[in-house]
Amino acid sequence: MRKAIPALAILGLFLALGAWGAPAAETTDGAGHGGPVVPVLLGLIVILLAAKIGGELFERMGQPAVLGELVFGMTLGSLGLLGFGGLEFLKTSVGLEILAQLGVILLLFQVGLESNVGEMLSVGWSSLLVAVLGVIAPFFLGWGVSAWLLPGEETLAHIFIGATLCATSVGITARVLADLGKLSARESKIVLGAAVIDDVLGLVILSVVSGTIAASNSGGSLDTLDTLAIIGKAIAFLVGALLIGGWLSRRVFRLAGLLRVKGILLALALSACFLLSWIADRIGLATIVGAFAAGLILDGVEFRDLGEKTKHHIEELINPIGGFLVPVFFVLMGLRVDLSTFGQTSVLGFAALLSVAAVLGKMICAAGVLERGLDRLSVAVGMVPRGEVGLIFAGIGAQLTLHGRAVITPPVFAAVVVMVIVTTLVTPPALKITLARGDRKRGRVPETAPVPEPERPALPLG
Amino acid sequence: MRKAIPALAILGLFLALGAWGAPAAETTDGAGHGGPVVPVLLGLIVILLAAKIGGELFERMGQPAVLGELVFGMTLGSLGLLGFGGLEFLKTSVGLEILAQLGVILLLFQVGLESNVGEMLSVGWSSLLVAVLGVIAPFFLGWGVSAWLLPGEETLAHIFIGATLCATSVGITARVLADLGKLSARESKIVLGAAVIDDVLGLVILSVVSGTIAASNSGGSLDTLDTLAIIGKAIAFLVGALLIGGWLSRRVFRLAGLLRVKGILLALALSACFLLSWIADRIGLATIVGAFAAGLILDGVEFRDLGEKTKHHIEELINPIGGFLVPVFFVLMGLRVDLSTFGQTSVLGFAALLSVAAVLGKMICAAGVLERGLDRLSVAVGMVPRGEVGLIFAGIGAQLTLHGRAVITPPVFAAVVVMVIVTTLVTPPALKITLARGDRKRGRVPETAPVPEPERPALPLG
Repeated sequence: MRKAIPALAILGLFLALGAWGAPAAETTDGAGHGGPVVPVLLGLIVILLAAKIGGELFERMGQPAVLGELVFGMTLGSLGLLGFGGLEFLKTSVGLEILAQLGVILLLFQVGLESNVGEMLSVGWSSLLVAVLGVIAPFFLGWGVSAWLLPGEETLAHIFIGATLCATSVGITARVLADLGKLSARESKIVLGAAVIDDVLGLVILSVVSGTIAASNSGGSLDTLDTLAIIGKAIAFLVGALLIGGWLSRRVFRLAGLLRVKGILLALALSACFLLSWIADRIGLATIVGAFAAGLILDGVEFRDLGEKTKHHIEELINPIGGFLVPVFFVLMGLRVDLSTFGQTSVLGFAALLSVAAVLGKMICAAGVLERGLDRLSVAVGMVPRGEVGLIFAGIGAQLTLHGRAVITPPVFAAVVVMVIVTTLVTPPALKITLARGDRKRGRVPETAPVPEPERPALPLG
Repeated sequence: MRKAIPALAILGLFLALGAWGAPAAETTDGAGHGGPVVPVLLGLIVILLAAKIGGELFERMGQPAVLGELVFGMTLGSLGLLGFGGLEFLKTSVGLEILAQLGVILLLFQVGLESNVGEMLSVGWSSLLVAVLGVIAPFFLGWGVSAWLLPGEETLAHIFIGATLCATSVGITARVLADLGKLSARESKIVLGAAVIDDVLGLVILSVVSGTIAASNSGGSLDTLDTLAIIGKAIAFLVGALLIGGWLSRRVFRLAGLLRVKGILLALALSACFLLSWIADRIGLATIVGAFAAGLILDGVEFRDLGEKTKHHIEELINPIGGFLVPVFFVLMGLRVDLSTFGQTSVLGFAALLSVAAVLGKMICAAGVLERGLDRLSVAVGMVPRGEVGLIFAGIGAQLTLHGRAVITPPVFAAVVVMVIVTTLVTPPALKITLARGDRKRGRVPETAPVPEPERPALPLG
């Protein structure tokens, strides 16, 4: 109970800040003279504290922190429904939107830095097959659910909703496997390899769907040739960035090793990330495709020349910036969920069916495991969490318009957020159960004796 | 010559990016669909690369990197005068403006973290006297120069221009002293202590002038009682923040040590910085006053509880974020210098006289050194560089209006930038000369044998 007091005090601070800050955000000439940064400062305080309180509560419940950021964002966003409008400015601030977008670009840059092209190629056919099956099945299931329940929407909107179900969240799966001491298991390697390939496939699908929507808006139609052209462009961009970027960055970094000025490693890494993100946007792909490619490239660069000058790895420098900006994205995504849409039973039903499609769609991954003696169900369950990538896609869809209407409407956005939360919540307990079952079946002694927690009900997963 | 090729290639890249990016910044529905972040990405690439190239060139010339960022910003900004308008969007982007403002807030937070209240109090009367003399003299000299050469401006504008001449740049002085191996000399300690007190006095003057301008705009007048009230508010804020903030932050950080979630140290530090900046703005002070106070507070907090969880010091986490955002501020300040104003001889004359006032004003600091046997001229020369603080003040003045007219007009802004550049350029060679002279006079063997560089002409300093 004593621990609740600071939490309550901080919640009180939020409300006070909101009540005090709201007029400041609207009128530009109050007491202060700090210009457009002032409401952003207020927003950042609220967002950073909400992210950490939410993250802490969810970690204590054995759930990933990112879910807490999302749920606390939803809570803050729904204060408006309760008549407290002091935080409404968070939803429309251009400054926070830009910081959130920089956050998601840095997140994909970090994912790219952690992914290794060589390792991706070496995990072999099982990962590739698991990834491809795990992208195709949820894609068509999601498309089907959308076409069935939202007959009024256009085909491209259904396809976009299908696309939000594709990509597994590497971060969440890896975190759970690490917590269970299972990162070195063969099943884990397949899951992690597949999740990375998944990301790439998801980014390609996103590029195709976004490109088709752009073409459709300018009067064109859904043409197989155009679709192939966009797929080609996306693949050419990724391969080209890896080859040219890898060649070029080695040389640039070697030259940079000769420089005296401080902070050159950080500046070059960020410039490379922003440059590829910007080029990706210019050629019609999503910015995050470029950020991911930049991460892959810089993962391969050797920092030996710079190594003697800087005591830092590139990740060490990017992580604090990510730690600052990435929560802004997730809290803002939560803030934008319009909880009032759940008043419509149809939205709840859509969210439920979408979640079922997302979970069932990944169960087919079990068929992709070629090796014998492995626990296929664990691989499939490991592919279930969607986390950030689904959210990122939904966020992009909410900004795209098709014939003047948002591709991802507010109710659909809310349903996608529910799907992300359900798939992510379900995974940790389910994975504990299936991995323990697999160990028992083979008579292996589990490394860390993961006892299935009795207080959690077993989840009906396939 | 071979080294020039990559530099030329990068300059070419700038121009190409600008030419390609300019339409993207203006039309929102081009090929991309990345929203408002896309022009910001382009701006960040240009700014980060310009900052590092400029920094490198100036470091190789024995000058601080920050000058290079400023001068390269001016160069990029003047491309528009040569008919290349591709980078003009940098000057008006709200996103970049917000990032720059966050950068300067983080910079003052870093300065606060590096300053130690206990040390400030212990350097004694010499530092205090040096600081007070070094603030009063340039303030009135600047006021006088402005009143003489700009008879059309209002008194408050003259006072504001005087205020931009007050504060010594801790960073630049410390850097030069460290480079000369002189950080432990008694003269250096006086200069560094005085520079910190200087910052505080400068922030108080800024608060008073800004507050008076706000009062004047709402129909009030320059009243001694009001001025005293603002001085009282500024001092009460700093002292209150130190006392209450110090007491509260110790408890909050101890509680935070009990949390499991990652990144809590960074989130709390940033929240504290943003919260005090925001409060400062709300009560009519500049945001940077709050950021500086937050840094002073967190410098005193013991991280023993968190220390076992995190391997990082607070500075280590803030430095990469500062390394990303601080150059945005300086390059943007350079970009906003309208070089065409130098076409008017009156502006050049004003810049020259302002620079002389800035240098001469600090020479009186020599009288503040109470101890015998010290080289007083070195102390005075060490107080000359203005660097970031003068620029920050000028930037704030450019955003303030007095009876519908900017307090710092574009020609005055350009003159202040020249003053900052001159005072900063003059210091390193002058300090080398005076310190060596002082060593010779006392028959001391200089620690690192700083030979006065013959190729640099001796500067007529007092």
